[in-house]
Amino acid sequence: MRNVSCLGFQAVGMAAGIKKNRAKDLGLIYSETPAAVAGVFTRNAVQAAPVTISRERVASGMCQAVIVNSGNANCCTGERGLSDAREMARIVAESLKIHEAGVCVSSTGVIGEPLPMDVVRCAVPRAVAGLRPDGIMDFAEAIMTTDRTPKVVEARGLASGKAFHIVGVAKGAGMIRPDMATMLCFVLTDAAVAADLLQEILREVNEETFNCITIDGDTSTNDTVLVLASGRGGAIVHAPEDRPAFRQALLDVMGRLSRMVVTDGEGVTKTVDIHVRGARTRAEARTVADTIGHSCLVKTALFGEDANWGRIIAAAGRSGVPIDPGTIQIDFDDVRMVQNGVGCGKAVEAEATRVLKTPAFTITVDLGMGSADARIVTSDLSLDYVRINADYRS
Amino acid sequence: MRNVSCLGFQAVGMAAGIKKNRAKDLGLIYSETPAAVAGVFTRNAVQAAPVTISRERVASGMCQAVIVNSGNANCCTGERGLSDAREMARIVAESLKIHEAGVCVSSTGVIGEPLPMDVVRCAVPRAVAGLRPDGIMDFAEAIMTTDRTPKVVEARGLASGKAFHIVGVAKGAGMIRPDMATMLCFVLTDAAVAADLLQEILREVNEETFNCITIDGDTSTNDTVLVLASGRGGAIVHAPEDRPAFRQALLDVMGRLSRMVVTDGEGVTKTVDIHVRGARTRAEARTVADTIGHSCLVKTALFGEDANWGRIIAAAGRSGVPIDPGTIQIDFDDVRMVQNGVGCGKAVEAEATRVLKTPAFTITVDLGMGSADARIVTSDLSLDYVRINADYRS
Repeated sequence: MRNVSCLGFQAVGMAAGIKKNRAKDLGLIYSETPAAVAGVFTRNAVQAAPVTISRERVASGMCQAVIVNSGNANCCTGERGLSDAREMARIVAESLKIHEAGVCVSSTGVIGEPLPMDVVRCAVPRAVAGLRPDGIMDFAEAIMTTDRTPKVVEARGLASGKAFHIVGVAKGAGMIRPDMATMLCFVLTDAAVAADLLQEILREVNEETFNCITIDGDTSTNDTVLVLASGRGGAIVHAPEDRPAFRQALLDVMGRLSRMVVTDGEGVTKTVDIHVRGARTRAEARTVADTIGHSCLVKTALFGEDANWGRIIAAAGRSGVPIDPGTIQIDFDDVRMVQNGVGCGKAVEAEATRVLKTPAFTITVDLGMGSADARIVTSDLSLDYVRINADYRS
Repeated sequence: MRNVSCLGFQAVGMAAGIKKNRAKDLGLIYSETPAAVAGVFTRNAVQAAPVTISRERVASGMCQAVIVNSGNANCCTGERGLSDAREMARIVAESLKIHEAGVCVSSTGVIGEPLPMDVVRCAVPRAVAGLRPDGIMDFAEAIMTTDRTPKVVEARGLASGKAFHIVGVAKGAGMIRPDMATMLCFVLTDAAVAADLLQEILREVNEETFNCITIDGDTSTNDTVLVLASGRGGAIVHAPEDRPAFRQALLDVMGRLSRMVVTDGEGVTKTVDIHVRGARTRAEARTVADTIGHSCLVKTALFGEDANWGRIIAAAGRSGVPIDPGTIQIDFDDVRMVQNGVGCGKAVEAEATRVLKTPAFTITVDLGMGSADARIVTSDLSLDYVRINADYRS
C-alpha cells in the first residue's frame, strides 16, 4: 500500500506543528488538471468554517486541490474561522499557481480553538514542494486524529471499454453516526465523470456506506466526503451502461472505508452488523437497527462478550416501531438465541458466546411482520472508548 | 431513616434466594385497608409479564398489596411468565387473606430467564409473617439491583385542614431514559385521594420528574410507578384548593427520588442538570436538552472533567432543531464558556474546570431564539458504567 497512486493526482502529508505531538497534521491533494468534484457534508446545524467554504466550491463542480489539517476543527471560531479557512485556500492557490475557487478545505480535531495560521502559512509552501504521485499514504496519515491506522482502499473497473481506477482515503474514529458523511473521506479516480453525475452517484453510495455506520451516535461538525475525477485514465463514465460499473467500484471503496472506520473506532474491539429483517417497511427496519446499534447497554454487552439478548429486544421495543415481541427471532451469526420472543435456553448460550468472542459478526433480528430489511454496522462500547474521550483534550 | 413508616401500611424486605449473592430480593407492601391506586408504566413495546398484570389491576383503582422481586425481570418469558406473575399475586392474596385482584406485581433484574417459582412459593408466607409498619427500609433494599443505596424519601403537607404524609421508595441505576416511568417507584400516602384524581396528579408529576432524567438512554421493560393512598391519616384531597398541596408534596417526593436515581446511576460520578432556554417552543428545548444529555461524547467529557463545550454545541447542532450557532450562549453554573457561538477563551477554562470538579452542577444552553425552556437531569459516562454493564450477567 505504500506506493498507492491515482493517475493525474499528487499528494503529500507532513508534520506542520498543529498537533502538539509532532505527528503528521497537514495533507494536500493536487490534481494536475482541473478535476470534476462531488461532495456530501455534515447535516449538523453547527458547521465548521472549512465545510462552509468547501460546500460553496463543490457547487461549481470543479476542484484542483484539497488542503486538510488535523488537530484543529476550525469550528465555532466565528468570522475569524471563516477568514482563516479562506486564507488557507488562498495560500495553497498561490503556491500551486491555480485558481483560489478550485481549492477545497477540510479540518478535523478539537472544536472551538482558532487555527494557528502562522504555522499553516509557513507549512503550505513546503507541502506544495513535497507533492508526489505516491504521496497518498502520507496524506492518509496526516488526516488522522484518534485513528490507529491510516485508511486507504483501491478498486478498478471498466467504463467506455477502458480501465479506471479509484483510490479512497478516510479518517474517523469517534463522533460517528449515520447522518450524512460522518468523517473525512477523499476519493480520487482517473475516470472522466461529469460533476452532476458524480454527485448523483456519490449521494446514492453514501447512503449505503457512511450513512450505515455508527460508533457513538454523535455527529461531527466537520464531516466531508469529496470525490475528485481527473479523467486522465481515458475511461469515460457517461453512457447509462457505464454507470453500474463505476457505482459498484465506488460502493466497494466507500463500503470498505466505512467498515474500516468502525473497526478502527475509538476503543472498538468488535465490529457488528445489525441486520433487521421481517419489517413492514425499510424505514421501520432502519429505525429498529439504529436503536439497537446505538444502545449503550447492547454495546457494553458486546464489549463484555455477553449474549444478553434481553437488551437487544428491549432496545427494539423502545424504538417507536410497533413491534410484536411474540414474533421476534434473534440470531448471532447462525446461532438462534430467541424464537418467538422467548429465549432458546442456556444450551445455546455457549454457542452464542463463541460467536461473541470473534472480532466481527452479524446479529439478525427478524421482526416477523413483513419483508423489508435494513443493515447497519456498529461497534461495542469499551473501557478504552471512555478513556479516550474523557482525556481527549488533555 | 431506619424507622420510616406511613399510616395504614406495613412492609417487609427479605432474602428469598432469587439473587445468587444472598442479598435481599423479595419485598412486600401491604395496606391494612384497600387503598386507592394510580400507576404509570413503561412505554416500551416489550413489556414484562408483571407489568401486564399490574396495568390491569391499577385500572380498577384499588390495591391492597404490592409484591416485588429483584434479580429477575420475568420478561420475554412467554405464557409461563404471565402465569408465574399471576401465581405470585395469588400466593400473596392467599397468605394475606385478601382479594387476588388487589395485588400488584413488579419484577426487576435479568431479562429472559424464568422466575424460580419454588423459591417464591416458599418465601411469600415468610414475607407476610415479617410485615411491619417500619419495614419500608427493608423493602427499599429488597428491590435494589445495581443500586448502591436504597432510595427512600418523605414529605408532609396539609389538605382539608389535616396533615398528610407521603413516603416514596425507588430503585433504578441503569436502563434509565426519559420515557414514562423508567424504573420502579412505590409511593405511599395516608391521605384519602380518589383513584382517578390520584392518576391525574401522578401523570403530571411523572412528566416533571422521572420523565426528565437519563443515564444511558435505554428504557426498561419493567418500569413502574405506583402510588397507594390509604386515607388513614384523616386528610382528604378532594376540593380544588387541596390539590396543589398534595401535588407539590408528590412532586417533592418523586423529584428527589428521580434525582437520587441519577446520582446513584451505574458508575455515575456527576449529576448534571441540562437547562436549555431561549428556545422557540418547549418541545424544541426538550429535544436539544435530550440530545445533549444522551451524547456519549458529552458524557465522557463530563467524566473526564473536561470543559469541552464543542461537544455540547455539536450535540445541539445534530438535534434536528434548526438552531443558529451564532446566537448560542453556554454557561457551566455561572461561568460563561460560549458567547454567540464562539468560545470565551482559555481564561475561563480554569473556572469552568472548577465547576466540573464538583459532583453536581448545571449546564445552561441559551439558544437565543425565543423564551421557552426545558430541563433534564443527566449523568456522566464512566469507566465503571462500562465495567458494570459488560459484566452484568456474569
